[in-house]
Amino acid sequence: MNNHAAVRPVFFVSDRTGITAENLGHALLTQFNAIKFEHHSLPFIDSEEKAREAARTINRVAETSENQPLVFSTLIDDVHRRIIASTHAHIIDFFDAFIKPLEEELHTPSSRAEGLLHGISNEVVYMSRMDAINFALKNDDGASTREYKHADVILIGVSRSGKTPTCLYLAMQFGLCAANYPLTESDLEKGFLPEALQPYRDKLFGLVINAERLRMIREMRRKNSEYSSLAQCQKETRLIRSLFEQEKIHNIDSSQISVEEIATSIIQLMKINRPPIY
Amino acid sequence: MNNHAAVRPVFFVSDRTGITAENLGHALLTQFNAIKFEHHSLPFIDSEEKAREAARTINRVAETSENQPLVFSTLIDDVHRRIIASTHAHIIDFFDAFIKPLEEELHTPSSRAEGLLHGISNEVVYMSRMDAINFALKNDDGASTREYKHADVILIGVSRSGKTPTCLYLAMQFGLCAANYPLTESDLEKGFLPEALQPYRDKLFGLVINAERLRMIREMRRKNSEYSSLAQCQKETRLIRSLFEQEKIHNIDSSQISVEEIATSIIQLMKINRPPIY
Repeated sequence: MNNHAAVRPVFFVSDRTGITAENLGHALLTQFNAIKFEHHSLPFIDSEEKAREAARTINRVAETSENQPLVFSTLIDDVHRRIIASTHAHIIDFFDAFIKPLEEELHTPSSRAEGLLHGISNEVVYMSRMDAINFALKNDDGASTREYKHADVILIGVSRSGKTPTCLYLAMQFGLCAANYPLTESDLEKGFLPEALQPYRDKLFGLVINAERLRMIREMRRKNSEYSSLAQCQKETRLIRSLFEQEKIHNIDSSQISVEEIATSIIQLMKINRPPIY
Repeated sequence: MNNHAAVRPVFFVSDRTGITAENLGHALLTQFNAIKFEHHSLPFIDSEEKAREAARTINRVAETSENQPLVFSTLIDDVHRRIIASTHAHIIDFFDAFIKPLEEELHTPSSRAEGLLHGISNEVVYMSRMDAINFALKNDDGASTREYKHADVILIGVSRSGKTPTCLYLAMQFGLCAANYPLTESDLEKGFLPEALQPYRDKLFGLVINAERLRMIREMRRKNSEYSSLAQCQKETRLIRSLFEQEKIHNIDSSQISVEEIATSIIQLMKINRPPIY
């Protein structure tokens, strides 16, 4: 018995970043939470030499582990795939599983071209994502409202409700231009939208959060301050909920969901016509 | 004949964000670049009612399209999957294809739990990603060097070589704390590393870029300026290459690759022990 006894090694093998392989692999492995997996990434396997090196790495782990390794592969090149298939591992080959059935269904041979995802094969789409990141940074935290006419969405919410990470994710993943504007206590006490936001009512999307979680997040930033006190968090979260209700602003509770989920919900609720992911 | 004649409708159906379904679906579809696909996302299909609504949407498109729709699904619930399977579409079911073989290989039933990826099922991992985003924002563009001791990596390069988007991606996707420091012409002319960076030599990673591409990117920011002139871009890119060589700084050319590829390469070349993607 060695110390790998309870652990199952998992490899993610790809000719490019491996991010797709790893994402889907994890989605599958999270369905087996009784098993402990040990993750290894092998990206950029784009030559025979690298495929052989990867195979040696997998076999070395296979020899010292009680459990046969799992290999999730998005390799496309047939020679490289055969090299990986010859290892002492259980292979889960995404392209093998789907490309052949798709070729039949689409009555077209596939191009077998490597690394078309997560590259910059489409320069225009790529540059629009980079521009969107710059837009999010320039229009973060109410820093400027001059470019709001170019925004796809303007997030509003109290400090630390998740606006900035959501804007950056909308930019990075979907190429959307997202600005954000923090509503302060004095904004909220007025009981109506700040003047700077009123012309952009159709682009506004609100984030709400429960007071307990807000307190926890604010405590990490400014410990034992009035800003992070439960009373202050309760006051702001109550006021913002009634503002959103009164002004009929689409909104979502960010307390229990991730930036990926918040971003996807915003696109859905605002019916934003986003480009496909590339 | 209708105007959908040459277009193949594609649906991405998921009980959560659908980002995994869409990423892998695109990786597969980019192998068929002779065909024009029309993308539809159906996220958050987590009830029988929503599954029936999704099935109606798919069937409506199927009726008006010359081509049978493709459906990429990461649904887990058996009832919801059966509803989608009954549509007039060609179904590519990721879980069906892999979960059963994995159950056999792992000798364990899967938990059939929905939405374990891209949620905040693991609070600690999620908060560390959010902290990493804040770290990237606070340590962007040499704004502060006080937290460099906590950085996993410090990117250095000339203005507009891709440092900021790469830092944000490292944070968002991998939860890594990445700072960045711009090397100005006067830094470069000195011919050695700025003093502020010298204690962190092991964490430095350089981005280089070719002069033509740098000129193009800078032109978008400041048109017809000295900053964006070819002569200036040639000078800076030449000086930074020799600095990296002389100081033996790991570096990569960002001209032809995406932030995903830059980030993955940095992790690999710096041997950064990153957590798995969740």
